[in-house]
Amino acid sequence: MGLLITFEGPEGSGKSTQIRLLAQALADQGLPVLTTREPGGTAIGNAIRALLLDPVHSEMSPRAETLLFTAARAQLVDEIIRPALAAGQIVLCDRYADSTLAYQGYGHGQSLEELRRLNQYATGGLQPDLTIYLDLDPELGLARKQAGAQQEWNRMEEQALDFHRAVRQGYLALAAQEPGRWLVIDATRPVDWVQRAIWQRVEPVCRAHGTV
Amino acid sequence: MGLLITFEGPEGSGKSTQIRLLAQALADQGLPVLTTREPGGTAIGNAIRALLLDPVHSEMSPRAETLLFTAARAQLVDEIIRPALAAGQIVLCDRYADSTLAYQGYGHGQSLEELRRLNQYATGGLQPDLTIYLDLDPELGLARKQAGAQQEWNRMEEQALDFHRAVRQGYLALAAQEPGRWLVIDATRPVDWVQRAIWQRVEPVCRAHGTV
Repeated sequence: MGLLITFEGPEGSGKSTQIRLLAQALADQGLPVLTTREPGGTAIGNAIRALLLDPVHSEMSPRAETLLFTAARAQLVDEIIRPALAAGQIVLCDRYADSTLAYQGYGHGQSLEELRRLNQYATGGLQPDLTIYLDLDPELGLARKQAGAQQEWNRMEEQALDFHRAVRQGYLALAAQEPGRWLVIDATRPVDWVQRAIWQRVEPVCRAHGTV
Repeated sequence: MGLLITFEGPEGSGKSTQIRLLAQALADQGLPVLTTREPGGTAIGNAIRALLLDPVHSEMSPRAETLLFTAARAQLVDEIIRPALAAGQIVLCDRYADSTLAYQGYGHGQSLEELRRLNQYATGGLQPDLTIYLDLDPELGLARKQAGAQQEWNRMEEQALDFHRAVRQGYLALAAQEPGRWLVIDATRPVDWVQRAIWQRVEPVCRAHGTV
């Protein structure tokens, strides 16, 4: 069996960069590494992602939104993640089930118990071996993103700052509940500092699983 | 509060015709009637419907499929059905939560308990006042549909006959569990016979709710 390592954190926290750096570091060790993301990662998931991010769908019901995210997750798990793990690969996934708890639960106030059941259904109970949370003050995150201006401002990002503060508190609460699975890193640190902090935690996990 | 009347039954059972006829009969009484369908019925629901029916998505995971159906349902309930009921309208819906139990549960063998929980989440617990099931032997239904040839053969319809037999048994089991909510009608009867049978059941329900 391979390893499932998920990355969580707001827009602008440097998730994509750190996933790329970790994938490279693992590949440099000769390890089979697969990177993916959600919503997306499959043809069906990308169609769902497009639907979720389209600003035209401003009337989307919160429950419909949650179910679309979990539909993309179910597809990703069944089509990509489980086969990769079965083939002994290390899977790095940009967002996973914890995003639903943080955004729809802590952020939008949906029942955490209901959301956990949805995640359980969508993933068939597949839990990450390690979850890396890049923690960033929401104001800083949005400022970074706007400065970059590499993408259109989308529907998700239009949501108020208070919402992002609640999401952040949610992530910190989740991490505190399962410290063995989570690594919380200050995302304002320099890229190479964050990279080293991640590697220090990932390497022993890989070794424990006999992959390094 | 209005009334929610749902229609269930296989392709070729005459659901669309009977919904149209009932809508006309209710409108003739001066009643406010809204017809809708799922998956679909909203812009978001129609995008989900297109994704579900596209034959290119043959790799769709059963759990992803179920979650997409329930996402379209959640959107339809929140955007269309609840506001219509609050406005005192009679809502006629082509398929609803029972389709998930029949197709994904009895047909595909997913857990009925999990599917009931998903439906509960997606609908916020909104149950139909009456569910009309147009019962048809699967062989006859597919033959009717092919003879009509008014639509492309789609992914849903390619599924084997055994599956459709299990779905039918599922519907009959659901109807038997809640006879007060269900009306089972032999869909091989002539259109006007079926129409009268539906009206005989709908009229007293409307009267009991003070709408006729």
